[in-house]
Amino acid sequence: MKLAVTGKGGVGKTTVASLLAWVYASEGNKVIAIDANPDANLATALGISSDEAQGITPIAELKDLIQERTGVKAGSIGTFFKVNPKVDDIPEQFSVKKDGIQLLVMGTVKKGGSGCLCPEGALLRSLLSHLVLSRSEVVVMDMDAGVENLGRGTAKAVDAFIIVVEPGQRSFQTARAIRDLAKDLGVGKCYTVGSKTRNDNDQQFIIDNLSDFELLGFINYHPEIAEADRLGKNVFHTSPGAVHDVKEIVAKLERIIRKS
Amino acid sequence: MKLAVTGKGGVGKTTVASLLAWVYASEGNKVIAIDANPDANLATALGISSDEAQGITPIAELKDLIQERTGVKAGSIGTFFKVNPKVDDIPEQFSVKKDGIQLLVMGTVKKGGSGCLCPEGALLRSLLSHLVLSRSEVVVMDMDAGVENLGRGTAKAVDAFIIVVEPGQRSFQTARAIRDLAKDLGVGKCYTVGSKTRNDNDQQFIIDNLSDFELLGFINYHPEIAEADRLGKNVFHTSPGAVHDVKEIVAKLERIIRKS
Repeated sequence: MKLAVTGKGGVGKTTVASLLAWVYASEGNKVIAIDANPDANLATALGISSDEAQGITPIAELKDLIQERTGVKAGSIGTFFKVNPKVDDIPEQFSVKKDGIQLLVMGTVKKGGSGCLCPEGALLRSLLSHLVLSRSEVVVMDMDAGVENLGRGTAKAVDAFIIVVEPGQRSFQTARAIRDLAKDLGVGKCYTVGSKTRNDNDQQFIIDNLSDFELLGFINYHPEIAEADRLGKNVFHTSPGAVHDVKEIVAKLERIIRKS
Repeated sequence: MKLAVTGKGGVGKTTVASLLAWVYASEGNKVIAIDANPDANLATALGISSDEAQGITPIAELKDLIQERTGVKAGSIGTFFKVNPKVDDIPEQFSVKKDGIQLLVMGTVKKGGSGCLCPEGALLRSLLSHLVLSRSEVVVMDMDAGVENLGRGTAKAVDAFIIVVEPGQRSFQTARAIRDLAKDLGVGKCYTVGSKTRNDNDQQFIIDNLSDFELLGFINYHPEIAEADRLGKNVFHTSPGAVHDVKEIVAKLERIIRKS
């Protein structure tokens, strides 16, 4: 299964992505976590030190490797690969492994004014669409904030979008925009996760405002989540409450998938 | 003066931008607020209804107008304009005015998979660099989350970046990345604003971690800010406390500018 975690900036996408990855891994799945945000911080959220993270070669630099293996020239990448890369094909230099999670990063802006990240997005889109997963393999992609990745179609090949919302109109606006754009990409499954909810009122506010979405559950406000960010630690070791919330979310997602 | 408000997703950029615009306007300046975020919600933060906001033609569609006025063909836009547009030249159909603030929006993704927003970014960069301001005119740009806009150089022509941070390592990482990339663009002035600080501890945490930045001040956590987002209202009418914080920030910014 391939999942993309999206939503307005700051709603908790990276926290949700890191927790989803951890819960799936703890249940015995092979998990590939992909940081598709140029303002990358999934590594930190997974408890990977900045030294370790800096050792990862971004996917953008897989270009040469793909060319070497497939004979497809750089520049024509993003169109068609001759071979379907398997998860095991992704070499270790392009990822780091921790707690059973293999982390890949898309790459970021290296120099101000050097251009946008369209080539990186295209490469990731292509990699994702050709990645063949076995039954117990899960890809969790942490997208950049907002809607631009949907213009690029970076996550075109995912099975579902997990849209994270908080109790506020602005994150609801973004959720609706994402769903409309996801439809254009042919991704019909968009589920919501309520984030930072402090009480029943907050939960009900999300339910009432997004009644036309399938809600997977809530990751309530846990002070330990903010504390984890202060300390640069991972959430799953810091906040058992958040892990509990996400286990319920994963259980519901699995029920929905089995039904469909 | 031209200011770009930047930072990690969800730190409060749009809130800061709307408050800066409102404080400058209330002090008798002519303010142009530009929503440079494709996941646009500055209009909501300024208390502009979604109906009114939908009536604004995005800057991206200024293209034809610029061509008509300058004779520069579409496609070559982003290079050089024959005329320097004055603020008064921006026609009403491309903006909406409220509380003395003129709002322009960059434009967003219209269809999933339709491509990135590079042309929009280029047009905005060009418009911004050619916009001639009088002494009492202020441009406040609300940027998209993270670092991609710095690759594009959308805000190359601003006088300063206002980097919003919250008490967490991830927003500090983003602040440092932004400053490095801004230098490449030739923008040497990067000031920080601490956001969502709940106590002296939170403030000190930001001061200690970003001691090599010039800090303009804090917008403390005010429950009314979240409430404004719940109700889709503007912050400056909902939270007098936040307005007070931003008045101090503007005063400090003015002192710094006068000295330099």
